[in-house]
Amino acid sequence: MTIRLGENQYGKAEVRLVRVERDTARHRIRDLSVSSALRGDFGAAHTTGDQSGVLPTDSQKNTVFSFAKEHGVGPVEEFGRLLGEHFVRTVPTVRGARVAIEEYGWDRIGSDGAGHDHAFVARGGATRSTVVDVETTREQVTQVVSGVKDLTLLKSTGSEFRGFYQDRYTTLAEADDRILATSLEARWRYTGAYVDSDEADRDQDWDDLHQSITAVLLDRFARVHSLALQHTLYAMGEAVLAQHPQVAEISFSAPNKHHFLVDLSPFGVENPGEVFHAADRPYGLIEASVVRDDADDPGNAW
Amino acid sequence: MTIRLGENQYGKAEVRLVRVERDTARHRIRDLSVSSALRGDFGAAHTTGDQSGVLPTDSQKNTVFSFAKEHGVGPVEEFGRLLGEHFVRTVPTVRGARVAIEEYGWDRIGSDGAGHDHAFVARGGATRSTVVDVETTREQVTQVVSGVKDLTLLKSTGSEFRGFYQDRYTTLAEADDRILATSLEARWRYTGAYVDSDEADRDQDWDDLHQSITAVLLDRFARVHSLALQHTLYAMGEAVLAQHPQVAEISFSAPNKHHFLVDLSPFGVENPGEVFHAADRPYGLIEASVVRDDADDPGNAW
Amino acid sequence: MTIRLGENQYGKAEVRLVRVERDTARHRIRDLSVSSALRGDFGAAHTTGDQSGVLPTDSQKNTVFSFAKEHGVGPVEEFGRLLGEHFVRTVPTVRGARVAIEEYGWDRIGSDGAGHDHAFVARGGATRSTVVDVETTREQVTQVVSGVKDLTLLKSTGSEFRGFYQDRYTTLAEADDRILATSLEARWRYTGAYVDSDEADRDQDWDDLHQSITAVLLDRFARVHSLALQHTLYAMGEAVLAQHPQVAEISFSAPNKHHFLVDLSPFGVENPGEVFHAADRPYGLIEASVVRDDADDPGNAW
Amino acid sequence: MTIRLGENQYGKAEVRLVRVERDTARHRIRDLSVSSALRGDFGAAHTTGDQSGVLPTDSQKNTVFSFAKEHGVGPVEEFGRLLGEHFVRTVPTVRGARVAIEEYGWDRIGSDGAGHDHAFVARGGATRSTVVDVETTREQVTQVVSGVKDLTLLKSTGSEFRGFYQDRYTTLAEADDRILATSLEARWRYTGAYVDSDEADRDQDWDDLHQSITAVLLDRFARVHSLALQHTLYAMGEAVLAQHPQVAEISFSAPNKHHFLVDLSPFGVENPGEVFHAADRPYGLIEASVVRDDADDPGNAW
Repeated sequence: MTIRLGENQYGKAEVRLVRVERDTARHRIRDLSVSSALRGDFGAAHTTGDQSGVLPTDSQKNTVFSFAKEHGVGPVEEFGRLLGEHFVRTVPTVRGARVAIEEYGWDRIGSDGAGHDHAFVARGGATRSTVVDVETTREQVTQVVSGVKDLTLLKSTGSEFRGFYQDRYTTLAEADDRILATSLEARWRYTGAYVDSDEADRDQDWDDLHQSITAVLLDRFARVHSLALQHTLYAMGEAVLAQHPQVAEISFSAPNKHHFLVDLSPFGVENPGEVFHAADRPYGLIEASVVRDDADDPGNAW
Repeated sequence: MTIRLGENQYGKAEVRLVRVERDTARHRIRDLSVSSALRGDFGAAHTTGDQSGVLPTDSQKNTVFSFAKEHGVGPVEEFGRLLGEHFVRTVPTVRGARVAIEEYGWDRIGSDGAGHDHAFVARGGATRSTVVDVETTREQVTQVVSGVKDLTLLKSTGSEFRGFYQDRYTTLAEADDRILATSLEARWRYTGAYVDSDEADRDQDWDDLHQSITAVLLDRFARVHSLALQHTLYAMGEAVLAQHPQVAEISFSAPNKHHFLVDLSPFGVENPGEVFHAADRPYGLIEASVVRDDADDPGNAW
Repeated sequence: MTIRLGENQYGKAEVRLVRVERDTARHRIRDLSVSSALRGDFGAAHTTGDQSGVLPTDSQKNTVFSFAKEHGVGPVEEFGRLLGEHFVRTVPTVRGARVAIEEYGWDRIGSDGAGHDHAFVARGGATRSTVVDVETTREQVTQVVSGVKDLTLLKSTGSEFRGFYQDRYTTLAEADDRILATSLEARWRYTGAYVDSDEADRDQDWDDLHQSITAVLLDRFARVHSLALQHTLYAMGEAVLAQHPQVAEISFSAPNKHHFLVDLSPFGVENPGEVFHAADRPYGLIEASVVRDDADDPGNAW
Repeated sequence: MTIRLGENQYGKAEVRLVRVERDTARHRIRDLSVSSALRGDFGAAHTTGDQSGVLPTDSQKNTVFSFAKEHGVGPVEEFGRLLGEHFVRTVPTVRGARVAIEEYGWDRIGSDGAGHDHAFVARGGATRSTVVDVETTREQVTQVVSGVKDLTLLKSTGSEFRGFYQDRYTTLAEADDRILATSLEARWRYTGAYVDSDEADRDQDWDDLHQSITAVLLDRFARVHSLALQHTLYAMGEAVLAQHPQVAEISFSAPNKHHFLVDLSPFGVENPGEVFHAADRPYGLIEASVVRDDADDPGNAW
């Protein structure tokens, strides 16, 4: 029986980078939070305190900022891949790198069509995310898992929950017509075939793909008559995989944000599905993934 | 020298009400957080524990929910006034009521023009707010202070900060061209003349007015060449008052969200206003109000 | 009718200062968040953008850090006063300064009596606060308002709520024995006579006084049989004023953190005051102050 | 190529339970947030919407509350195991259950030795946690992973960071003497041999063990001269495993909360390790585990 170092990684978290493109009077901005984490031969750093193989997290931060100027900031998937490949290729001890990025959206101010050239208002709502993982222990394998978080959705009808299993602790009434609401986190993994495809094409696609997949999620949430949140999530995931062959699997973490019909009968007032209390805690939490069985896919270890 | 009760109020905070209007297949929703606070003859409740004059906060919560069905939920200013007037008129001990409401926006799902009938996505971004105060100590005076919070704005150019006072602790360099960013909270008080005007007209106006005032704020932020955040705020406030006679005064609380240009010279990389670090703390905090001198206005004690 | 600048102030918020005293091997640390706000002749900064009277918030931050070394960091009330007086005395445009400080407590690691010389664990729980306001428009008046926030208290018995006013929206049952819980924010203003007393004595007292007043609050919360949260708060405030002549008034903001007895009868289980659901929202919110009538006190404009 | 349901689980999150033991006048309280998640044969709930195998999350919540009365609330590890075993044994579709509990500490009010019988003040600081996982796919395997989160630690000396790898983006200076601070999350897995041991003994031990392991963590943080945060974490984990054979492995997630020495030289002030700026973001993030190689251990899949 021996005691030894197990799994480990380290890096710089939440580097808050704002990149302004100002080549013309019409500026563009990218507003990111970038986190890097490195894996590799870091045993001595832990056991004896020898840091000779450790690239400081401060240097990782510097790299993020400098790459933003040297290479520009395109789609977050591509910026993440540039950083991840840099770390595994240049730091001798590094065997794997994981770059996680959140992007905060901004809209141009101005209700006229074009919007202002250099004034912006934060979009709020859902945040776009990606995690790019570059692993080189055997051959280089790059995985890209993109997603959205805090995508808050609500249906005021078209949702029921009935026929469930009942035990001695069950008091919930069956619901023919309830509010269904969630603050969705979805993450989808792009297939290796897509990730390793020709760069020029891929660069062009990342932003469009993200928008298109998000639109599928919204559309399915709205149109599927829901028999349960699980039922809705599966339909959303199935549609994404059916419509986007670039996606290998998709996983959801979906709080069931309960809206309770308020009993107004003590006041002589009826309440046919109109007045609800939006509860904070507890909440249901549904986690599910939808996958594509594909012999050529390098796997789903994420 | 005696010890006695000073100022006091009590109520129910953050009642999370979702109101669905479902008279037709095309639902509408209002998503609110409602807080009520009552002032009046509550000395005995504190000093001897006699609660006979105290309407429980639980009853206040019930009132919010029941009013949402009995009267519907229109503009938050009107819903707040209904509640405030109810408390001062029906509870014998109550001399004043303050109803604060935040409204969370939702958009219909669907990129086609009309959007879905009953599926919504949270808008995110800025939150609309109002505080309605009904005071009856002498005659009834109703004040309505509406606003926005978390309105996050950024200009990537058109902002400078120069010619400031310097003391021995000053190291800041003058800036000809910097990022200006803030997460604005603005609150504007409607004139008594407007608040007490004909109800039918006013109901129609509250939502439009809020939208119009917010648009003025955005427009001025974008178009004014900024000499300081103070300078921009004053211009925003001045424009609101000039264009909207219904507004008596407006106040701002505006963190100066610093974006620091990153020094990339150690890496041989120039950075002409392109790569910034968005800092969290500390931040500048600018608070200012712009007022209209008006002999007929009942005052600004808010 | 004219439009003009109203009340305004500006400063640097949340300067996160950690001061290590290391004159001996036994270190001491003070961990603060310091916010300064200046008032005065800043009209031109707003209306024309002329910043010549404006000390940058960056300089205010520098002053906080440099004062921490030049003068050391003693009790927060004294450190706040040093900063406030500096700004009003040295910056020509400044008429008033408000310095707000929060202090985060640390304990020495080590269960043996003395604790470790230079290793600490964050205490958590309540935060100590102070607001020092130096006003010089007529003569210099310094007000010190200290307090605690997030002081979370709970009584599992010894609390009732009965005999309250009932209207048509009242459904709450009277309670003979309930949980009383709050996350208290208390702020007390020291009398001018105390604030302006001999410095040597006062320096010694600030820390002791804060501890003593907090102990009175805890003791009264525990020992008073509560007829309502208002009743408990008044007793707490009255005791502070009775025992500490240095305090002119005290104000409370106290959420009533509801703990609802869970109905276990559907499962054939009795629940005599043992199993509770701790609710988040809505919550009652009780705000009250207790004051000392004192002809010599310069007033309570805070 | 087919599309199918992948991994999934569902449950009720953050049931906020306060349990009062009031058999004598000297009350005891347990304040918990309990989350349950069930795995098993839930394919139809997702793909066709058939909920006949789904125990509602509402029933899971009811079970938590009722068990708190029926069985009492002892150590969180034991309460979690009771719940987990209940779900896998009574719900036909359930193959595995994961019960995660956070416990919020309270101290008795009163500085005298005994403290008050029924009045408490929240302890703040670190939160105790546990995750009990009961898996029955083959035979029943119960894993217990306990821990602490938000254990915020700081050393004002006795920490260096030198001899690290340098690349073209490295500008960090070597540090002989720096502040080391972190807000630690630690999770340790108890060996199967311990988890499955005689219940009477184990019940008695859970609370003591948690306290003892936390004390080892604190002691090592304080006493180890740190060559890097990695180095300190490894020493902490190694000591826990060496001193507690009940622990199979321990993992850490430790933000490196940077404290930057402030440059006061522009003001003619020296700063020999006394005045620091506590930064928020970015921060280093060190994740590491220390494991015991043990042929008899059922594995570390958590």
